[in-house]
Amino acid sequence: MAEKQYRIGIDLGGTNIKVGVIDADNRLLGKLSMKTRPLGRDWHLVVADMAAQVNHLLEELDIAVEECIKIGVGSPGMVDHIAGVVTYAGNFEWEYVPLLAELRCSFPHMPMRLANDANCAVLGEAVAGAAKGARHVVLITLGTGVGGGVIVDGRLQEGGSAGGMELGHTLLKLDGELCTCGRHGCLEAYASASALTRQARAAAEGDKHSAMHALCGGNLGNMNGIIPFKAARQGDQTAQRVVDTYIRYLGEGIINFINIWRPEKVLLGGGVSNEGPPLIDPLNDYVRPRAFGGERGYVAPVVQATLGNDAGLIGAASL
Amino acid sequence: MAEKQYRIGIDLGGTNIKVGVIDADNRLLGKLSMKTRPLGRDWHLVVADMAAQVNHLLEELDIAVEECIKIGVGSPGMVDHIAGVVTYAGNFEWEYVPLLAELRCSFPHMPMRLANDANCAVLGEAVAGAAKGARHVVLITLGTGVGGGVIVDGRLQEGGSAGGMELGHTLLKLDGELCTCGRHGCLEAYASASALTRQARAAAEGDKHSAMHALCGGNLGNMNGIIPFKAARQGDQTAQRVVDTYIRYLGEGIINFINIWRPEKVLLGGGVSNEGPPLIDPLNDYVRPRAFGGERGYVAPVVQATLGNDAGLIGAASL
Repeated sequence: MAEKQYRIGIDLGGTNIKVGVIDADNRLLGKLSMKTRPLGRDWHLVVADMAAQVNHLLEELDIAVEECIKIGVGSPGMVDHIAGVVTYAGNFEWEYVPLLAELRCSFPHMPMRLANDANCAVLGEAVAGAAKGARHVVLITLGTGVGGGVIVDGRLQEGGSAGGMELGHTLLKLDGELCTCGRHGCLEAYASASALTRQARAAAEGDKHSAMHALCGGNLGNMNGIIPFKAARQGDQTAQRVVDTYIRYLGEGIINFINIWRPEKVLLGGGVSNEGPPLIDPLNDYVRPRAFGGERGYVAPVVQATLGNDAGLIGAASL
Repeated sequence: MAEKQYRIGIDLGGTNIKVGVIDADNRLLGKLSMKTRPLGRDWHLVVADMAAQVNHLLEELDIAVEECIKIGVGSPGMVDHIAGVVTYAGNFEWEYVPLLAELRCSFPHMPMRLANDANCAVLGEAVAGAAKGARHVVLITLGTGVGGGVIVDGRLQEGGSAGGMELGHTLLKLDGELCTCGRHGCLEAYASASALTRQARAAAEGDKHSAMHALCGGNLGNMNGIIPFKAARQGDQTAQRVVDTYIRYLGEGIINFINIWRPEKVLLGGGVSNEGPPLIDPLNDYVRPRAFGGERGYVAPVVQATLGNDAGLIGAASL
């Protein structure tokens, strides 16, 4: 009988379904990607695509399914990790989709796990990326929304039931900006890439001389999370204020998580994190003196995640 | 040789040093209490008092120290649970007090643990109180400050280093009220008994007809966290607004913790929690529809802790 040594990860995203296989050393041996779209199609078809992609990749890698220990799936939205059900994924218009039960039809007897995608990402970074070797880690992903993943004493934290570790849906400001979740003032409403884009657009509207106009090609509808950083580097004061304010929002959220978990590291992932040092350095300067206990306690450095899009795949395979 | 079956808990507070002994069924067999004061005296003397109290209680209960498995100590302030050191306790003017090392001089070879007092309280409630049998629990203590304790999958959460699980020092409102920790807008600055007292006093100052004046004996310096609830029950609208606003502050904090941990129960302890249903019922009504995922997710009921002052003692003995 073949020795079981490989693990399969599936990263379900709004744009792509990615599958990958990792070995016992958490090395990604190969991966495949296909479009998830059209969004809103029958979930059975999406799961059938996942299964087909897995079989395709195993064939390419010349690995038999019997050599695989398990399959892990990362999904966006609210996930019931215990039941293996996607409770709710707005992008897909999914409610209570029994994803693992369906996938098991294609891979009978295979151990399977399901988790939220940001939870997978922190696990990936912990086994093979920026947090390798750390036992206490917080990851914040800055994309369309703000996702969160936490590892405590080497164990992925998922909450006692569906919808836990929603770090983006903790409060930054009572009665503040309306969040996609319906609550006012969530961190996500201030620190996501979408929020940054909105903040930059509003600032540019108030300053017709801002370099952001040219960087948008004269149309503020082209604003994104990169432009204010770029304009700030060109010396644009309005853009610099946008960046400074954004760093403050994100920093205050990070201080909350340090006061809770006292991790060894705080990782930043997602699109905005690609700004690197112009984001990370002032963020550390903001966070360090403001965490509870000040200089008496250890304050985790904020660092950039390193695995990029592979984090979710490697993490899913490591569930 | 005597069978080891008893555990010793020490609850160090600003007012009292309490010691207790529990049996294998987490029953409190006996306890003693003495004044901690004067605050600011040499910490060696405080630890000597703890040791003397333990010996005194064991003698009273006719239990030999050899029959005890371990000693657990709950301390206010910032605690390094790994090193057994009180990093900082403002009340006592303590910094880096090696409490366990000192206590070990009196009880050589005895296994010992140190934790923050709110962490002990949640553990006590989980082994013998309102959260008995639950594996995922959040406790919030509403006293002079706001303390927090969390149990995940049956394990006490303490953070990766000193100063974790400071739920009172997570943000309610960016740029809000100044907190004792130096940060602006912490939950503690809105939801502690001291904050409630301040809110009630300000409201009474603005309404000379409020029933709160009489309940303070005409002197708003006598305001406390009980009076607004009492006045609201008498039909005083100003007091009712104070209560409603306080419930909203506390509710928003609780929603944050549900969105993170998805516990089975949220417990309220500390002075303010003694209000019972007039606090707890509207709090549940506020929290239930506002947690992330709304009706799709399980939302923990908020309930009153049941062990009162014994929670910390039983929890310390259970560390």
